[in-house]
Amino acid sequence: MPLMKSWVDSANSADCPFPLNNLPYGVFATAETEPHCGVAIGDQILDVTAAEDTGLIDLTDTPLFDVPFWNALMEEGPAVWAALRDRLTSLLAEGSDERAAVEPLLVPMADAELLMPFAVSEYTDFYAGKNHAFNVGSIFRGPENALPPNWLHIPIGYNGRASSVVVSGTEVRRPWGQLKGPNDPTPRFAPCARFDIELEMGAIVGTPSDGPITVQEADDHIFGYVLLNDWSARDIQAWEYQPLGPFQAKATATTISPWIVTKAALEPFRTDTPAREVELLPHLKDCGPMLYDIDLEVTLQPEGGTATTISRTNYREMYYSAAQQLAHHTTAGSPMNAGDLLGSGTISGPTKDSRGSLLEISWSGKEPIDLPGGTTRSFIEDNDTLTLKGVAKGDGYTIGFGDCIGKVIPALADPYARD
Amino acid sequence: MPLMKSWVDSANSADCPFPLNNLPYGVFATAETEPHCGVAIGDQILDVTAAEDTGLIDLTDTPLFDVPFWNALMEEGPAVWAALRDRLTSLLAEGSDERAAVEPLLVPMADAELLMPFAVSEYTDFYAGKNHAFNVGSIFRGPENALPPNWLHIPIGYNGRASSVVVSGTEVRRPWGQLKGPNDPTPRFAPCARFDIELEMGAIVGTPSDGPITVQEADDHIFGYVLLNDWSARDIQAWEYQPLGPFQAKATATTISPWIVTKAALEPFRTDTPAREVELLPHLKDCGPMLYDIDLEVTLQPEGGTATTISRTNYREMYYSAAQQLAHHTTAGSPMNAGDLLGSGTISGPTKDSRGSLLEISWSGKEPIDLPGGTTRSFIEDNDTLTLKGVAKGDGYTIGFGDCIGKVIPALADPYARD
Repeated sequence: MPLMKSWVDSANSADCPFPLNNLPYGVFATAETEPHCGVAIGDQILDVTAAEDTGLIDLTDTPLFDVPFWNALMEEGPAVWAALRDRLTSLLAEGSDERAAVEPLLVPMADAELLMPFAVSEYTDFYAGKNHAFNVGSIFRGPENALPPNWLHIPIGYNGRASSVVVSGTEVRRPWGQLKGPNDPTPRFAPCARFDIELEMGAIVGTPSDGPITVQEADDHIFGYVLLNDWSARDIQAWEYQPLGPFQAKATATTISPWIVTKAALEPFRTDTPAREVELLPHLKDCGPMLYDIDLEVTLQPEGGTATTISRTNYREMYYSAAQQLAHHTTAGSPMNAGDLLGSGTISGPTKDSRGSLLEISWSGKEPIDLPGGTTRSFIEDNDTLTLKGVAKGDGYTIGFGDCIGKVIPALADPYARD
Repeated sequence: MPLMKSWVDSANSADCPFPLNNLPYGVFATAETEPHCGVAIGDQILDVTAAEDTGLIDLTDTPLFDVPFWNALMEEGPAVWAALRDRLTSLLAEGSDERAAVEPLLVPMADAELLMPFAVSEYTDFYAGKNHAFNVGSIFRGPENALPPNWLHIPIGYNGRASSVVVSGTEVRRPWGQLKGPNDPTPRFAPCARFDIELEMGAIVGTPSDGPITVQEADDHIFGYVLLNDWSARDIQAWEYQPLGPFQAKATATTISPWIVTKAALEPFRTDTPAREVELLPHLKDCGPMLYDIDLEVTLQPEGGTATTISRTNYREMYYSAAQQLAHHTTAGSPMNAGDLLGSGTISGPTKDSRGSLLEISWSGKEPIDLPGGTTRSFIEDNDTLTLKGVAKGDGYTIGFGDCIGKVIPALADPYARD
């Protein structure tokens, strides 16, 4: 599919992240307007809430965009998702005879603050990148015991904390936690000293379910994707995670990119999961290309310094697709709801420069990385800004997600001091 | 505190679970009425939604009970909680001069269906009963390695699945899952064969927070308590839980009792946590009696058979209080919200007949228990009904929670068959 042209000129360059082929969904506010639903087009945002108010968008009996979240659309299912995309395409395409009505509803992106695009119902994080699991297992248990016995049979996941999910740009405060190094006689309560990122994609459930669903059904239920940084306190995690998994180590924040890129926009970029080392059980088997060819990158920028790319990888590196993860998630009967967010797990490629966490990049601090100016990093320092970027490269166009940015600010001096 | 007398005669007997001293909060519907908020008094329910509509209850500028959940009250905080309790006490006390206005708003409990009393924001389950942790650790790792190294230092917990929480009376369908016994060459997908209960109490967060809070603040933020059965698929758990904790093993259902018993009603029953084997770090230290003396019991009733009590224990057996769990939950900065549900962890006493799960009672199937009629149980069989009961015994009165009941129905023949 080539570039689809829009009458919004800025959307028509090959490297614009928001061409007519994309149409990602977000929530924005400006100095003049309350939070509204919007769709990105070039360097503009079309105010979708206003477009529904004025009747330009009229898909359902009850309004979809009267609250500043995309959940109501998600619940409507694929037919309404497709109808909205068709309508937006028609309104914004080159030569649209509705341009005069639409143009007053455009807001310059530069004037807008981007907010959480949806209400997160529940958040689940997976561990479904094989290079990552192998690296982490090698660090802690040696390469011969790196992958747990179940890893090639099920997409390992755990429930996270939905209330900790924040949108790109939100500052992330270094957490306190209970820590105990292997040689410490007793634990202590202190600020995290090994704060880390995890480069992930997040899949957002649209269609609700109430019982086991197949991998194909799961793919149909997914509404779209975001970039996701699952901030991780490695020292808290090391002490707490046995026997019931990570808890406070993953509770500080999970940052997502501001635009939900729909499955429709990503359709040309579908790729297969890798060859299976052991055959999956039938209910988890691949039934088509359900990963996506999305180039991913992480930069680290110290306060006042320059941004250095510390990782380059691709979403096609995953062993399990989001559809397989969602299918597994439903096996025991748990209802899934619109707005459920599934983190892919850390996406590491096979080489050192494609690893998706500092734990792996610095090999647990044994191999610090060099930054410009002679400084080094094993884990995140205060006032570092970490940015995830993602693009799918089409035939003369680009699908972007918007950067997923978080600056780590210093821990509280005393978390229990009260004004 | 002695029995407080009500003009609702049935509330005045020493063994009625719902005297004026209790006033627990639920949601009910009848053949004639939509779901409304209600408070239990004797064998009646006072329709609180109707009482607010008629102006008998008028605490806040905006209505608290116009949706069938108690979350709006929870968010108001302790002053409004106390004001409502005072008002209800005044309306229902013996000699109330408002009896004539209140009496038409009573609904016989026998005519009502009890629904979920609140919207569960997020659900967290802990592992904070020492006898349970020791028993489970002994079964899997031997008594010398029973308690993990962190266990005496932090209340170990993991995030659960809020969408799986159901109210007493909801049937629970035996789940399918991926299973692999220690001697099986490969995993298989099959119905769970080791389905279990966990006898717990659930603490409900009322006041929201956004950052670390102290144990005392945490106790102040808790709104009330319910009985909680954390259904557990032991065979799914055994295969999946390493390295990131239980996931599908705990995703089928968690059943709660229908009435939220407030902290105010439980005040006379506060007890201390046990003596500490190792000193807790300051931020988790006990600062007063924050457990409760609540007698707990589990019965198992096969289809068409009689109910047998399989466990008797008490909530004071916990090592960590809900306040300590909530304080720990906030250490890394995660916001907590009204309607967050914290499972205590399985409450096992020190003796065989006080164990809170069948895993412990049958010692992982090695010591099946005898039921009347010559039948035995290691784990739950299809069509068994499991019931948790809880009472706090006061001076001439009883505080009850309402039974927490779940019948286990057979697994689907084929979870992926579609009509």
